Amino acid sequence: MFEKKRILGIDPGLTRCGIGVVDGAVGRPPVFVAVGVVRTSPDLDVAHRLLQVEAGLERWFTEHTPDVVAIERVFAQHNTTSVIDTAQAAGVAALVAARHGLPVTFHTPSEVKAAVTGSGRADKPQVTSMVTTILRLDVPPRPADAADALALAVCHAWRGGHTNRYAALVAAARGKR
Amino acid sequence: MFEKKRILGIDPGLTRCGIGVVDGAVGRPPVFVAVGVVRTSPDLDVAHRLLQVEAGLERWFTEHTPDVVAIERVFAQHNTTSVIDTAQAAGVAALVAARHGLPVTFHTPSEVKAAVTGSGRADKPQVTSMVTTILRLDVPPRPADAADALALAVCHAWRGGHTNRYAALVAAARGKR
Repeated sequence: MFEKKRILGIDPGLTRCGIGVVDGAVGRPPVFVAVGVVRTSPDLDVAHRLLQVEAGLERWFTEHTPDVVAIERVFAQHNTTSVIDTAQAAGVAALVAARHGLPVTFHTPSEVKAAVTGSGRADKPQVTSMVTTILRLDVPPRPADAADALALAVCHAWRGGHTNRYAALVAAARGKR
Repeated sequence: MFEKKRILGIDPGLTRCGIGVVDGAVGRPPVFVAVGVVRTSPDLDVAHRLLQVEAGLERWFTEHTPDVVAIERVFAQHNTTSVIDTAQAAGVAALVAARHGLPVTFHTPSEVKAAVTGSGRADKPQVTSMVTTILRLDVPPRPADAADALALAVCHAWRGGHTNRYAALVAAARGKR
């Protein structure tokens, strides 16, 4: 038997940071806990916006006391300011998680899409639709960043167990050497 | 007359975060205060390395009480993991500065090179050599990240005044509307 874990998923961003909280256990359907976004003011400079991201995340961590944190991995495929902004927000998210002593896993967007829709190339409406079905929500979560964060938490609920079992096997094998 | 300002320059990085501290005043040669690096262990995961960056920077901020912070701007010109790691470290640096209530300015690598060598395309040895001369150091600062951080602080000492005067003019013009 695997114990229940509360997963806090973060879709990092400087303008909107999506947050989704799910209770998951391997072999059980994940259970919706909460969803929302941390917004920052575009009138502020980047440093103060990151401070708002930190403060907003701290409130979510304190209120929902997650066991694990899943963050969407940022890729530098385009030379845009927004990629750097997003990576900086992801760094602050990982920092807050580590400060709370929580394990952090980064999942790629295609891992998340594949986990909830069966296809790594699903579009945003498909992800939102599947998250709504999987978590038996009455209404689709909005905005898309919030739905993405829930999808990330669901992905971690399903993949995380395997990752952990694999890590446990590796650790056990190492211990035997 | 412009008052003296203590500038803390940060060349962000996850493996080595360069730090350079300089006292600057417009029209005066910048004065060396301190230089060093914050290192993190490659054995740790990203989240815990960011926590080490934060802790290391906190010590520098507490010890040297800067008035302003200059951070090297990260560009996503290559799709490499290191760009994202660097951006995450830069985000943590900006966060720590904002938490201390300090103004943060990002300077591009070419701005920094141009400020200390006269050429935006200078190589690392040229930057190190000029920083050594400008700050009248007995030995060139090592590693290159530390020299870059000092160059960033020198750049800010020289450009910062102009930037601030321009910002003041813009603010004054806005106030008159």
